[in-house]
Amino acid sequence: MAITVVGTVTLDTVETPQKRVEDVLGGSGVYAAIAASFFGQPVRLVGIVGDDFPQEYIDILQSSGIDLEGLTQVENAKSFRWGGRYSEDFNVRDTLFTELNVIADFHPVLPDAYKDTSFLFLANDPPQLQLSIIEQTSDPKLVVCDTMDFWINEEREALEKTIERVDILILNDSEARLLTGESNLIQAAREILCYGPERVIIKKGEHGAISITESSYFSAPAYPLKKVIDPTGAGDSFAGGFMGYLASVNDVSDRSIRKAMIYGTVIASFNIEDFSVNRQRTVHFRGIAVRYRELQEAVRF
Amino acid sequence: MAITVVGTVTLDTVETPQKRVEDVLGGSGVYAAIAASFFGQPVRLVGIVGDDFPQEYIDILQSSGIDLEGLTQVENAKSFRWGGRYSEDFNVRDTLFTELNVIADFHPVLPDAYKDTSFLFLANDPPQLQLSIIEQTSDPKLVVCDTMDFWINEEREALEKTIERVDILILNDSEARLLTGESNLIQAAREILCYGPERVIIKKGEHGAISITESSYFSAPAYPLKKVIDPTGAGDSFAGGFMGYLASVNDVSDRSIRKAMIYGTVIASFNIEDFSVNRQRTVHFRGIAVRYRELQEAVRF
Repeated sequence: MAITVVGTVTLDTVETPQKRVEDVLGGSGVYAAIAASFFGQPVRLVGIVGDDFPQEYIDILQSSGIDLEGLTQVENAKSFRWGGRYSEDFNVRDTLFTELNVIADFHPVLPDAYKDTSFLFLANDPPQLQLSIIEQTSDPKLVVCDTMDFWINEEREALEKTIERVDILILNDSEARLLTGESNLIQAAREILCYGPERVIIKKGEHGAISITESSYFSAPAYPLKKVIDPTGAGDSFAGGFMGYLASVNDVSDRSIRKAMIYGTVIASFNIEDFSVNRQRTVHFRGIAVRYRELQEAVRF
Repeated sequence: MAITVVGTVTLDTVETPQKRVEDVLGGSGVYAAIAASFFGQPVRLVGIVGDDFPQEYIDILQSSGIDLEGLTQVENAKSFRWGGRYSEDFNVRDTLFTELNVIADFHPVLPDAYKDTSFLFLANDPPQLQLSIIEQTSDPKLVVCDTMDFWINEEREALEKTIERVDILILNDSEARLLTGESNLIQAAREILCYGPERVIIKKGEHGAISITESSYFSAPAYPLKKVIDPTGAGDSFAGGFMGYLASVNDVSDRSIRKAMIYGTVIASFNIEDFSVNRQRTVHFRGIAVRYRELQEAVRF
């Protein structure tokens, strides 16, 4: 089944204690779409870039089989640029700059071919934009959205309206605490269910991820990586891999969702082994399957 | 098989945002011994108290079936007292006071009956004391020790000598980072293996626990508690439950160790549902088995 990913397509500048890279391919939409592309299903990307966006990056997306009919390129405009710096232990990320450029006034219109999408992933974007996308689709089988602290603080009302319309909200631990004011993550997740989604997935970085519904609890382990190169895009890779697997089995049962979280974890683990999407470009499904089995073994008791 | 627990036996004053309790039964040895006692094996406690230690607390330990031949009561001396305060979200604990009293100059001599112990747990104590206990035993099947930031900072050399002699080191995430100077927990655990233990278990509170050996990785989920009353003793309860299960099956294979970590997790989850050891006093094995099965379900994929 086809997956439609709506998210940012950016030129990123990333500084880690070891290295600095400039204007590399990034953005929530890019990471999620590439992660989703490993499962052999059509992946469509909705986003916007300026005329400074390198053809080389378009080629990378196309070579991953991603449909770019929904990617708007604007003449005489600049792409969204983001710069961030990680602390020694990668636990703190400072945003150095955010130049919205083309996305400041982006009101995407879904191509007709995307409107009947079954699997819709709304990566981090303004909540109004996310809602407008939902309204342009005809009853997807699964709508999943991500968000971030900025929207929780600045656009809370719009965010609540969006969350009400999604099946699954994916967010990280600090965002779950911020959204609910509740420090206990289990309690925070339960409170978020009251906003409307059927399921909440909380990403906890090196501690894995948890999924909560009214009647189920799933704890996904982290993949035990000894070395982190660049965590940028890990959460989006998790979500993209999650969507890609679900679309490939065309099933949204609890059983499939658990497996999908493990696939998302594996793809995120590859993502952070290099800058930008470099590592994903050399990963084959066999490598994904190996790590999946390692995680099966890691929780067996 | 018998389990010998060596640790502190204290009178604790604990403040949480909800409540304050004074001079309640506590200490690493107490929490661990009571947790170990659920598995039907003989549990012996080595520790020291003053003449201010209430008979009521002795009765609680005895009613849990704990052998107290190794518990020294000193006339005209005061018990170890500890006071701590938790922040709103329980993630920060400030020590308000530490009165060492009787344990300041404690050099335990193992009762003869304890010397052939098969399962030895050295709860948090000065590393020299832990080493002296190991030297008084005759080749236990399993030696496990815990430690804390204070000994890592103040008695590093002695601690390294102790760690070299144990089979498993159990410590929490911040202690693993402090001991190695390595922020990545997987890497930190691998470095600790170089000190000598065969296995390192890192407790991560609400994020569960991980176990690392040269050739295996196990990720134990946390039990999804919605409400925490008092986290004091959770780590010791984890370790005590872990030891109790292993002694009950008289096996230290990787397979049994994984199950033991889950039992430890379950008993710790009960511990934090009330102050002191109050909750454990009402728990029956059936309740432990129910949560064990819930955790099996929580990681299934």
